[in-house]
Amino acid sequence: IAKEVAKLLEMKAQLGEDEGKHKFVLKTPKGTRDYGPKQMAIRERVFNAIISCFKRHGAEVIDTPVFELKETLTGKYGEDSKLIYDLKDQGGELLSLRYDLTVPFARYLAMNKITNIKRYHIAKVYRRDNPAMTRGRYREFYQCDFDIAGQFDPMIPDAECLKIVHEILSDLQLGDFVIKVNDRRILDGMFAVCGVPDSKFRTICSSVDKLDKVPWEEVRSEMVGEKGLSPEAADHIGEYVQLHGGLDLIERLLQDPKLSQNKLAKEGLGDMKLLFEYLTLFDITDKISFDLSLARGLDYYTGVIFEAVLLHQGNEHVEEPVSVGSVAGGGRYDGLVGMFDPKGRKVPCVGVSIGIERIFSILEQRLEASEEKIRTTETQVLVASAQKKLLEERLKLISELWDAGIKAEMLYKKNPKLLNQLQYCEETGIPLVAIVGEQELKDGVIRLRIVATREEVNIRRESLVEEIRIRTSQC
Amino acid sequence: IAKEVAKLLEMKAQLGEDEGKHKFVLKTPKGTRDYGPKQMAIRERVFNAIISCFKRHGAEVIDTPVFELKETLTGKYGEDSKLIYDLKDQGGELLSLRYDLTVPFARYLAMNKITNIKRYHIAKVYRRDNPAMTRGRYREFYQCDFDIAGQFDPMIPDAECLKIVHEILSDLQLGDFVIKVNDRRILDGMFAVCGVPDSKFRTICSSVDKLDKVPWEEVRSEMVGEKGLSPEAADHIGEYVQLHGGLDLIERLLQDPKLSQNKLAKEGLGDMKLLFEYLTLFDITDKISFDLSLARGLDYYTGVIFEAVLLHQGNEHVEEPVSVGSVAGGGRYDGLVGMFDPKGRKVPCVGVSIGIERIFSILEQRLEASEEKIRTTETQVLVASAQKKLLEERLKLISELWDAGIKAEMLYKKNPKLLNQLQYCEETGIPLVAIVGEQELKDGVIRLRIVATREEVNIRRESLVEEIRIRTSQC
Repeated sequence: IAKEVAKLLEMKAQLGEDEGKHKFVLKTPKGTRDYGPKQMAIRERVFNAIISCFKRHGAEVIDTPVFELKETLTGKYGEDSKLIYDLKDQGGELLSLRYDLTVPFARYLAMNKITNIKRYHIAKVYRRDNPAMTRGRYREFYQCDFDIAGQFDPMIPDAECLKIVHEILSDLQLGDFVIKVNDRRILDGMFAVCGVPDSKFRTICSSVDKLDKVPWEEVRSEMVGEKGLSPEAADHIGEYVQLHGGLDLIERLLQDPKLSQNKLAKEGLGDMKLLFEYLTLFDITDKISFDLSLARGLDYYTGVIFEAVLLHQGNEHVEEPVSVGSVAGGGRYDGLVGMFDPKGRKVPCVGVSIGIERIFSILEQRLEASEEKIRTTETQVLVASAQKKLLEERLKLISELWDAGIKAEMLYKKNPKLLNQLQYCEETGIPLVAIVGEQELKDGVIRLRIVATREEVNIRRESLVEEIRIRTSQC
Repeated sequence: IAKEVAKLLEMKAQLGEDEGKHKFVLKTPKGTRDYGPKQMAIRERVFNAIISCFKRHGAEVIDTPVFELKETLTGKYGEDSKLIYDLKDQGGELLSLRYDLTVPFARYLAMNKITNIKRYHIAKVYRRDNPAMTRGRYREFYQCDFDIAGQFDPMIPDAECLKIVHEILSDLQLGDFVIKVNDRRILDGMFAVCGVPDSKFRTICSSVDKLDKVPWEEVRSEMVGEKGLSPEAADHIGEYVQLHGGLDLIERLLQDPKLSQNKLAKEGLGDMKLLFEYLTLFDITDKISFDLSLARGLDYYTGVIFEAVLLHQGNEHVEEPVSVGSVAGGGRYDGLVGMFDPKGRKVPCVGVSIGIERIFSILEQRLEASEEKIRTTETQVLVASAQKKLLEERLKLISELWDAGIKAEMLYKKNPKLLNQLQYCEETGIPLVAIVGEQELKDGVIRLRIVATREEVNIRRESLVEEIRIRTSQC
């Protein structure tokens, strides 16, 4: 028996091994996803809206590699650097996947000695973050960036970036939104007058950055407990960060006895006032909120910062609308290009990044709920046959149509049934069928069927292209 | 003196160290490049040509992540696997950058149990190859793939793939080209009748694959020397691989006493004949060459394979045109999806990949040579001012134009000189200038200047949008 058991166990082990060999997890990497044809159709709609806005504002377009030298990314992202994807050292240069499009843009400017450009860049970026895919937070996600680089008169490009966010979010009809605005100089001035030591500015700033997700009490205890800030300083900050408003608040803070004595804060508030004047001319101040709690984590910002959030509109009686997360953000980063330039020459920059994935999530859910049928091809006509043995005639006709620029398909069967061909059109939304038949071939005509109405007309072969064009011109 | 020297040396060492700290190589990773606005303009032209062809053939579009689980790519690329980029193990899954779009496509089909789809996918792929950037060989490069998956009657989708290559290469006007066609089954049959042992099929196949780059003598000595093939077998292969032609050659080989006895070769030749019949109906056989030397390295092909090469046209008296390299390739891979399916269910596939980078290189060089000025923005109008202190009026006007969908720019200066504003239009090709002036504001008009003719007309403000639309409708 023992022998038999040993034999069986051995067989089992072998089987196990074999199974192990073929066991293969069929999935995309954590935090990533495929886009199927339907998702792509939504994605292209959104991209078109965004690109046409960027082009409306006169932007050129550039592209950069998906990876950069590791050292290009080093020291640009503060505490978030741990989220960078590195490539394996396979000999040669050490590489990392880009974390955003801003640092590659700055590298591009410095490398090509460009001091003046308005460009957009739409591409995927990579962050080893904790994914929350249902809410549109991925490890691989698109950014749509628009930036203005160059030495210009204050706040004119900054105001344009906010106008762009306003245009895009209005155009996409995502519901109500608010664009929060602040300035790194106001934050730093505020930290100074609250008694935060210089060395703690950045880390306290990244605590403030969490205020959109966690309540003040938690942020305060992080400041005091983990980061060793005095309770008085923290409470002082707590008073400021609850402030938000418009021109009136700016005026009030310009009179604030402490802030008005701080050079940085005063500069920031002066520019904020100018910004609001320009935004008034653009007629968009109703969606803009000067918000002292807005911090934004990235190290490279030096001036204006902003972030757009969508507001829940479920219940109009709720006083404070609940934010469903940031869909766009950006700011001024005057020092970043200088970090790459061998002589440290600065190129002032301001830009905005549209966070597409949350917008996709919303539109995808909305489309699913609506049961709207979305076409995933643009095919105008199916080339079909009424009888058997007409494959060659179908091939000849479809080739003529393709060469004339008509979008045409046929079933890849020698002798498909007419019913199956018509069904294919119903399923995929193809509006026309060009039917080849023996009698029609003799008569030099093609039978054209309009799928929606089931109407059929004989068209002379030489007029078919024109007829298809006319009948699908509204598509 | 010694003391002084030591001190100086120490100072020098410190300086060196400081310099070292700031020494930073400002470059993109090896084998990659940025696309500036001009390159992007060319790229978009090429993409548009390719995408409109894919859409004309009724393809849907998908996208997949830039990286896959490492094991997804394992065992798919034969000897080329060493060129795969791996990501660093930072905890979690082991990942690799995609090497092509075909394997991710097969993974996508198996994962979503799709047995029938016609899709295109345009995205970057990554190969740690030796770059030759002037000839358009990069480590990061675009592939534009069109594939048809599904169980269909033989050679109909295969013929469509060749038609697509023909359409795209004709449309892009890159000069004369030839599409070489072969079949893995014909190759394998040929190897069998030449006396190549089964175990050596793949490695001998990858030797044959080099024939477009190195002469037969070298390939032969690799087969015999490195790979241990008998000289007789090699010479026998040598006779076959010099054959190329059309239907006549197919007929001849179908009568070949040895090949016609081999089941695989016979099947392949039969299908090749059918393919040529369909290509005759498409009227493209003049650009197709059945070529027994075409092998293609990738392991996953199972049937028809093809590759399009551009031909030098410099000297018409040269008998054999010199190939400037492959610009498209593809083939049938009926087993790849089954490698991912837990139950091994097969989904037959055939597809084509357009190699965009060489096409870019050619078009870029051509554009540089032609000195044609290429616009990198679509701006219709510059909002300018004739006097000082009109920034606010410019902001108000440009905002109106943007909101009406007009592509408009302005200089980001408070008081720009009119001359500078006009010069900006000349440089960037903006066709119109909308000039705000004090008198015009009083009169309720805007002065519209046509840059090309220097003509100026006063337009009532409420008609400005319409006027700009009309005047730029041909752009």
